[in-house]
Amino acid sequence: MPAPLPPFEATDDTSVLAQTPRTRAVRRGDRGNHDVATIHAILDEAPVCHVGFIDGTDSPVPVVIPTVPWRVGDELLIHGSSASRMIRRLQSGGEACITVSLIDAWVLARSGFNHSVNYRSVVLFGRPRLIDDETEKRAALDALVEKIEPGRAAKVRPANAQELKATAVLAFPIAEASAKIRSGPPCDDPEDMDLPVWAGVVPLSLVAGTPIRDGE
Amino acid sequence: MPAPLPPFEATDDTSVLAQTPRTRAVRRGDRGNHDVATIHAILDEAPVCHVGFIDGTDSPVPVVIPTVPWRVGDELLIHGSSASRMIRRLQSGGEACITVSLIDAWVLARSGFNHSVNYRSVVLFGRPRLIDDETEKRAALDALVEKIEPGRAAKVRPANAQELKATAVLAFPIAEASAKIRSGPPCDDPEDMDLPVWAGVVPLSLVAGTPIRDGE
Ligand SMILES: Cc1cc2nc3c(=O)[nH]c(=O)nc-3n(C[C@H](O)[C@H](O)[C@H](O)COP(=O)(O)OP(=O)(O)OC[C@H]3O[C@@H](n4cnc5c(N)ncnc54)[C@H](O)[C@@H]3O)c2cc1C
Ligand SMILES: Cc1cc2nc3c(=O)[nH]c(=O)nc-3n(C[C@H](O)[C@H](O)[C@H](O)COP(=O)(O)OP(=O)(O)OC[C@H]3O[C@@H](n4cnc5c(N)ncnc54)[C@H](O)[C@@H]3O)c2cc1C
Ligand code: HEM
Ligand code: HEM
Repeated sequence: MPAPLPPFEATDDTSVLAQTPRTRAVRRGDRGNHDVATIHAILDEAPVCHVGFIDGTDSPVPVVIPTVPWRVGDELLIHGSSASRMIRRLQSGGEACITVSLIDAWVLARSGFNHSVNYRSVVLFGRPRLIDDETEKRAALDALVEKIEPGRAAKVRPANAQELKATAVLAFPIAEASAKIRSGPPCDDPEDMDLPVWAGVVPLSLVAGTPIRDGE
Repeated sequence: MPAPLPPFEATDDTSVLAQTPRTRAVRRGDRGNHDVATIHAILDEAPVCHVGFIDGTDSPVPVVIPTVPWRVGDELLIHGSSASRMIRRLQSGGEACITVSLIDAWVLARSGFNHSVNYRSVVLFGRPRLIDDETEKRAALDALVEKIEPGRAAKVRPANAQELKATAVLAFPIAEASAKIRSGPPCDDPEDMDLPVWAGVVPLSLVAGTPIRDGE
């Protein structure tokens, strides 16, 4: 068992998030970090996040729902139907764990054991606030559209009152979060280096193809 | 509130999973399905899954951890350190929710509200069994290596006793699961069709780049 940590490690450095007992990477802790700029960059690049929350009437059941995340300042936002289960569970004060992972490469080693993935990921714990104020809500939804295509929010028809009412936007503080990153070549055992098997990394990236105009 | 369903909807059709109260898609239920072949195909394509489980000493905390999934028959497998928190929580009978999502396109509509994502996702609930038997465990880990590169398992150095001991492989039944899929162009409101904004889909795919040999 790791030694218990104080609830929040005091730090005056605002470029690094304070570590909490649940955001300290134990396994391969050398790959963990709490650098704010790193965490923001991973969140900004992610097209999808996985929102974990607890549901269940008789006994608690973990649920993980994929959704599109976007960042406004030091908050991570998600949206959905005001009537959806995910939104209702979170809105009622439920704690969430939101995880984002970007895959950069398969890491092919000379032994099975040393295979890996190059990745950048973020795990964030927190409770959301509901963005209620109409001006703030419109700006938040514009920022979502802007994440997909900068400049687009000004070009599309804005939400009408009914659409706005049907939509819930939740904002999570990016405060109790960690990043974890692996990069570089495989780490093989010295005695495996001469085995006659290809070893190295196969880069992976999410690539946009040719846009298909509606109606074509 | 949706009408309560019987715990397991009886079905003799083995090509479709029985629906349970927690695997019925409520929001956009038209996009949900329980077709076994569809669920298997999504799981097979996914390089990463997000494993949700409950942790916490005082009060239950949801945790979502990314990991590489692979399928052997009608079970979904994950692996990690025998000593890791994730493995220990799940091994001790903990219930999990494992979610996989593949992003196929951004869907750009003429109104903000009608924007969407083309996706294929699976949400799976269950409790795992630990793969303990050495022969089965080796075959399972070989199948992981084969997922990344078919034919590779026979070429790499097999795990030694210590590596095998350090590794835990968990298998989840693909029994209580659902798929959800969106595809096709944006669904715009008729009165928005003449707005002067580009609308359509931007395909996205995870693409392998040029492999980089170790040492080059
Ligand atoms: C694409 C991808 C694939 C992976 N595949 C595997 C796999 O197949 N097997 C495997 O064992 N591990 C895999 N990992 C690593 C995995 O996510 C965990 O880091 C590891 O399994 C340890 O989990 P734990 O809950 O036991 O961690 P602990 O180290 O006990 O977690 C403690 C805290 O550290 C932080 N932390 C842990 N993991 C992450 C993370 N990934 N990102 C950000 N913060 C984190 C969180 O705050 C967490 O609460 C993968 C990661 C990524 C991104
Ligand atoms: C890449 C991606 C991005 C998405 N972005 C958003 C977003 O930004 N906002 C948003 O509201 N929704 C988004 N969705 C849809 C989202 O995953 C949920 O389907 C939706 O939010 C309803 O969640 P709920 O828990 O309220 O669902 P309910 O319909 O109440 O869920 C009931 C059951 O239906 C099944 N189910 C629900 N969702 C899925 C799923 N995605 N895959 C497989 N089975 C499922 C599960 O078994 C679940 O337990 C996205 C999905 C994907 C794959
Ligand atoms: C292509 C096949 C494989 C891939 C893609 C893969 C990927 C990974 C990844 C990404 C991690 C997380 C490392 C981290 O925390 O940063 C991991 C951990 C681990 N893998 Fe694999 N792996 C593969 C095969 C194997 C095999 C065959 C074994 C055993 C023989 C194995 C044993 C382990 C163990 C024990 C850990 C835990 C490390 C720790 O927490 O300290 N892996 N794997
Ligand atoms: C580029 C921007 C956007 C993207 C990528 C996006 C994506 C999505 C996706 C993928 C879903 C899930 C649909 C499903 O369950 O299959 C969704 C649901 C939803 N979106 Fe968006 N969205 C965007 C902008 C908006 C805006 C601007 C609004 C409001 C003005 C909005 C309101 C909603 C609502 C209300 C739902 C819930 C639908 C339901 O559960 O019935 N979205 N969005």
